[in-house]
Amino acid sequence: MGTTLLSDLGTEIVIPVCAVIGILFSLFQWYLVSQIKVSSEKPAAGSDGKNGFTESLIEEEEGVNDHNVVQKCAEIQNAISEGATSFLFTEYQYVGVFMVIFAVLIFVFLGSVEGFSTSSQVCTYDTTKMCKPALMTALFSTVAFVLGAITSVISGFLGMKIATYANARTTLEARKGVSKAFIVAFRSGAVMGFLLAANGLLVLYIIINVFKLYYGDDWEGLFESITGYGLGGSSMALFGRVGGGIYTKAADVGADLVGKVERNIPEDDPRNPAVIADNVGDNVGDIAGMGSDLFGSYAEASCAALVVASISSFGINHDFTAMMFPLVVSSVGILVCLLTTLFATDFFEVKTVKQIEPALKNQLIISTVLMTIGIALVSWIALPSSFTIFNFGAQKVVKNWQLFLCVSVGLWAGLIIGFVTEYYTSNAYRPVQDVADSCRTGAATNVIFGLALGYQSVIVPIFAIAISIFVSFSFAAMYGVAMAALGMLSTIATGLAIDAYGPISDNAGGIAEMAGMSHRIRERTDALDAAGNTTAAIGKGFAIGSAALVSLALFGAFVSRAEITTVNVLTPKVFIGLLVGAMLPYWFSAMTMKSVGTAALAMVEEVRRQFNTIPGLMDGTGKPDYATCVKISTDASIKEMIPPGCLVMLTPLIVGTLFGVETLSGVLAGSLISGVQIAISASNTGGAWDNAKKYIEAGVSEHAKSLGPKGSDAHKAAVIGDTVGDPLKDTSGPSLNILIKLMAVESLVFAPFFATHGGLLFKLF
Amino acid sequence: MGTTLLSDLGTEIVIPVCAVIGILFSLFQWYLVSQIKVSSEKPAAGSDGKNGFTESLIEEEEGVNDHNVVQKCAEIQNAISEGATSFLFTEYQYVGVFMVIFAVLIFVFLGSVEGFSTSSQVCTYDTTKMCKPALMTALFSTVAFVLGAITSVISGFLGMKIATYANARTTLEARKGVSKAFIVAFRSGAVMGFLLAANGLLVLYIIINVFKLYYGDDWEGLFESITGYGLGGSSMALFGRVGGGIYTKAADVGADLVGKVERNIPEDDPRNPAVIADNVGDNVGDIAGMGSDLFGSYAEASCAALVVASISSFGINHDFTAMMFPLVVSSVGILVCLLTTLFATDFFEVKTVKQIEPALKNQLIISTVLMTIGIALVSWIALPSSFTIFNFGAQKVVKNWQLFLCVSVGLWAGLIIGFVTEYYTSNAYRPVQDVADSCRTGAATNVIFGLALGYQSVIVPIFAIAISIFVSFSFAAMYGVAMAALGMLSTIATGLAIDAYGPISDNAGGIAEMAGMSHRIRERTDALDAAGNTTAAIGKGFAIGSAALVSLALFGAFVSRAEITTVNVLTPKVFIGLLVGAMLPYWFSAMTMKSVGTAALAMVEEVRRQFNTIPGLMDGTGKPDYATCVKISTDASIKEMIPPGCLVMLTPLIVGTLFGVETLSGVLAGSLISGVQIAISASNTGGAWDNAKKYIEAGVSEHAKSLGPKGSDAHKAAVIGDTVGDPLKDTSGPSLNILIKLMAVESLVFAPFFATHGGLLFKLF
Repeated sequence: MGTTLLSDLGTEIVIPVCAVIGILFSLFQWYLVSQIKVSSEKPAAGSDGKNGFTESLIEEEEGVNDHNVVQKCAEIQNAISEGATSFLFTEYQYVGVFMVIFAVLIFVFLGSVEGFSTSSQVCTYDTTKMCKPALMTALFSTVAFVLGAITSVISGFLGMKIATYANARTTLEARKGVSKAFIVAFRSGAVMGFLLAANGLLVLYIIINVFKLYYGDDWEGLFESITGYGLGGSSMALFGRVGGGIYTKAADVGADLVGKVERNIPEDDPRNPAVIADNVGDNVGDIAGMGSDLFGSYAEASCAALVVASISSFGINHDFTAMMFPLVVSSVGILVCLLTTLFATDFFEVKTVKQIEPALKNQLIISTVLMTIGIALVSWIALPSSFTIFNFGAQKVVKNWQLFLCVSVGLWAGLIIGFVTEYYTSNAYRPVQDVADSCRTGAATNVIFGLALGYQSVIVPIFAIAISIFVSFSFAAMYGVAMAALGMLSTIATGLAIDAYGPISDNAGGIAEMAGMSHRIRERTDALDAAGNTTAAIGKGFAIGSAALVSLALFGAFVSRAEITTVNVLTPKVFIGLLVGAMLPYWFSAMTMKSVGTAALAMVEEVRRQFNTIPGLMDGTGKPDYATCVKISTDASIKEMIPPGCLVMLTPLIVGTLFGVETLSGVLAGSLISGVQIAISASNTGGAWDNAKKYIEAGVSEHAKSLGPKGSDAHKAAVIGDTVGDPLKDTSGPSLNILIKLMAVESLVFAPFFATHGGLLFKLF
Repeated sequence: MGTTLLSDLGTEIVIPVCAVIGILFSLFQWYLVSQIKVSSEKPAAGSDGKNGFTESLIEEEEGVNDHNVVQKCAEIQNAISEGATSFLFTEYQYVGVFMVIFAVLIFVFLGSVEGFSTSSQVCTYDTTKMCKPALMTALFSTVAFVLGAITSVISGFLGMKIATYANARTTLEARKGVSKAFIVAFRSGAVMGFLLAANGLLVLYIIINVFKLYYGDDWEGLFESITGYGLGGSSMALFGRVGGGIYTKAADVGADLVGKVERNIPEDDPRNPAVIADNVGDNVGDIAGMGSDLFGSYAEASCAALVVASISSFGINHDFTAMMFPLVVSSVGILVCLLTTLFATDFFEVKTVKQIEPALKNQLIISTVLMTIGIALVSWIALPSSFTIFNFGAQKVVKNWQLFLCVSVGLWAGLIIGFVTEYYTSNAYRPVQDVADSCRTGAATNVIFGLALGYQSVIVPIFAIAISIFVSFSFAAMYGVAMAALGMLSTIATGLAIDAYGPISDNAGGIAEMAGMSHRIRERTDALDAAGNTTAAIGKGFAIGSAALVSLALFGAFVSRAEITTVNVLTPKVFIGLLVGAMLPYWFSAMTMKSVGTAALAMVEEVRRQFNTIPGLMDGTGKPDYATCVKISTDASIKEMIPPGCLVMLTPLIVGTLFGVETLSGVLAGSLISGVQIAISASNTGGAWDNAKKYIEAGVSEHAKSLGPKGSDAHKAAVIGDTVGDPLKDTSGPSLNILIKLMAVESLVFAPFFATHGGLLFKLF
């Protein structure tokens, strides 16, 4: 078996140091962004209008009152930030109630496993030893759950704050050129990426060390209770994604249907009453939602790996460094991402519009290549050369190079998924151009081609995921799968940076429009935004791919803890589980899509009402009532996020309690294999429609010109496709990641309860 | 164990007698329909214009030249019939080539199992006995395959002939009132239903008896070779569904996009050059395709039941009556359906428009109730009171009442699926009305709500299927599941009758429009058609539900024959199979939807060209070139059906040969649980959009009036939804049934080969 080159003390140093470096780097980037001043005070006497930024400002525009523009940007930024903050606080109030109820549930359910006994018990996997009482593990699981939830909430909230902080600054920098604006948007994304990745790692590290003070040598119980951290992170992510997704798309669809389609005013026009709600939505949905989602994936993958490792030779031999391997990989990931970021911000410079997409793409390639070296290094120093991994009842011998392959295959699968997503959603390639072309014959063919594109885009990612699963599963069972997921997520800081870049640029464009900046500025932010659409799709691809691996790993961990050795499709219990599980993503999507539709209808009515009743709104002399639209989105999303939330949270509890662990295994596997496909196709279909519309609007090629310009029949058809795609790509699609992960992690946490008290229905009959 | 009340001789009599009764009844209905004369000859001297039908004709219309109208109807009917016949012959030529190649493949693959040895071998399941050589089973399987394919082709062709024969007759009868028209359309549907059901049963019965002459007591080999019948039936159905589906929707979408959207002329307007192709499509897609599809399901369910029974106590004890139980159930089903039909045609009369839907719905209820009694009867007389069923390596003891429950649960699940489908697709209920309402805010919300409706409509059917599976699987393993499928299909004659009724009414309306009949006639056919839309959706629901059960049964039979006892999700081989299998329906749908889109684009170009270049086309003085449009649809569907066909046919061969039976099991289970959901949602979404449009057009309620009339913005949005739904509900959705069934039956037929020579890739590495 052998020992690791890295000592336990070394491990205890490396992890927190890397996390702190990540946080410091993030703060440094924030400092750089904050150097761009946006005054939000009213110009007292026109005296302090300079704010020290005009020295370096090479103002290209003429006839623009510089001071007024900055002032307006500041006002808009404030409005967006306030709207987003107020929504998130409202959301967190509701979610807080849920968190308390669920925390009690966890404690009661898990405590009941041994009848709330306070005496120590024989360990599950090593029956020669004594483990801590189930009641204490229930307590610690509950604490971990609460900590995970809080970390997730903080992640989402900080992401939103950073993004709203960066929006107006990106707009202002766009006056100096594309290059400057790109740097600001990208740096702000990096702030979020590094802060989340480092924070998630640090909190997890601290929890493990603190819990260890109580658990001592009982690692089985220790890492069992740690799984609560993943559940907490993921359940907050669910509400964030669903609530935020409904918010943003109700506002977006509502604004577009009246503004663009009926009134023929441009996107983000300040006359549109829903425009502030729309911009708020980008921040609470795309930014805060995505932040919580990826943090959840990261936390869950780590928990899945740790819980399997705790019953493998790492845990049995109390080999701390090897046990912490998942965290060491993430630590190295932070350093690798740091280096990668410098390639975009310092080593090379984006000078023209055409360089934006390659620059972002290079981030993916560079981080993947560097990380491969990083993984090789940590596999060599932080793992024994040979060890055993728990494989559903048996121990499987694994070599360290095999685990290197497991992590790497996940990492590279992520890159492939990213590229395929780019191919299907960027308007530089055939698929989106074909969709744009189909707009010639109207909205119907556009929708048909778009749906077909989404279905087709599933093929390669599924093969990539299947291959990673096969390799990692064959080499190191469920530990391998969990590590493949962590491999894909190891470059999460970079992934989040380029992902957050998208909505920031989007909002920057919105602010430019609303502040009445010139056409040239808007063109620059549009170019940033078009690249952002593609990177947003890539980000979603990553999120889905990693979610698939994570939930398989969690599923495996659940099965291991429920002490099942086979999940046989050829039994009725399992098969109906598979069938019903595969249906759940449809049920869930039906709920979320209908919610968006209903909320959008309400928004449309309100926007129409304002246009009809507020005098002078269309000619710009009247002021729209933004607040009512914000309220509609807020109320709708809070109200509508509850039923899908309940569906996801209650299904494992009901199935596990009534039908038992076999049926639950089927449900988890079924929802996983079906949900992944819908999630990928929904997100790519939506991205493709969005960019097909942008392709026609931009009119760069001869072909695009023949379809345009804005307002042509083809363009109108493209707008309809884009609107249909909105809930698909930003609400139901990305929420499905969380559905599959969350059901799995919840089952994992409750596994001891289900194993003991589950399957009531079959026990009765 | 005991014996059956019905003697072997009795069984040998009951089955063919029932089949012959079905055929005779079908011919009698045909005779009744044929009493309505449609002259297709040119009026020689204006003398024989009466044709004996005007005596009874209470012509309500005035100012209509009766002779001219009949003449026109006859011409149109001829054009449709010729177009359909010519398409089917072209299709069969291509399919014939495939059939020959595949027949050779079957022979070579299966023959190679024992190295083409001609000597007898030890039986697989009873090693104390000798069985016929694998080479002979390969030969007989090939023969059964060819017979199944031919029966399927005949079923589809006859269905088409009957439908085209009935179209114009329904139109002509509509002049006398709704009641008469309904009877004709329904009787014609019954002709098809009974002919197909009885023919399928009779051919299968004859094949078994003929093959038995060679096989004698080797029932294992006998029923192994019979599985070829299911494969033949289903592979023809695939091409029928896909080819026909592309044909009909390319024409339909193309005709609508230019005619309804651009030129603002009504549906089925004779000025539209694609109108004949559209009507031909209804017959080759909805009628011939559906006929082949359900025949395939029936053949496969029977084969699955028989092959499992042959290795259970029925086969081991050579209990012929019990062995023939699946065929006896189907025989009784024919009698039950016969009685049911009389309720619609003789016992009660449809007098008003409002009675149409209840009359069709009653058919379902009556047949289900009567059949439950029938099943009880045959379970009592044709089964021993206790017997054993092969259950993946073990024999499971089953009572006859348990098997009664298995068959009944399938039957009733079918009824529930039918009603749920009606609820989601009929415009008498909330869901479709909500979708119609969403058209207020344009096509985008219509599409969003429609997709959400489709997703939602999956929930109850999946639970119904899951419960049938659980009950039948628990009681009698895979034999139970196969019998549940046969239970659902036992009322196939009635199901097909009400299903074929839809396209017949649809075409009748088209002919009325084209023949220039008055508005009142068109209103009557529209009422028939609206009911037909719902029944078509119900028919698709049945087809999907039975397909799910059938493919599970086939999957079970495959697993049994491949001698696998567990399909463990917790192995990488199986899991990646599940994941990739769940992806296949998306791949397949992407292909078929894109095919429809591409073919529709070509059609649009052609129709536009004709409108622009043929002088006087719009004002009715010029004659459109129907033939070119027919050719475009034909060419497109022949060319485009090959790639999806190859995907389905080659996947099991490639996976089985390279990855082996475990991965193949995963692929089958994955595609089953994922395909069912997409198929149901696609077909219901499409049906709902179609009826939402009709709801606005008909304007019966206050709500509907507020959305209409034809040509309003809301109506235009509804037309876009309807067009998007066309390929979903008539091409990709229903083809998915065949995908899941066909891959399973193909795996079953090739199981001995895969078990012997499969998994090359894993053997090599």
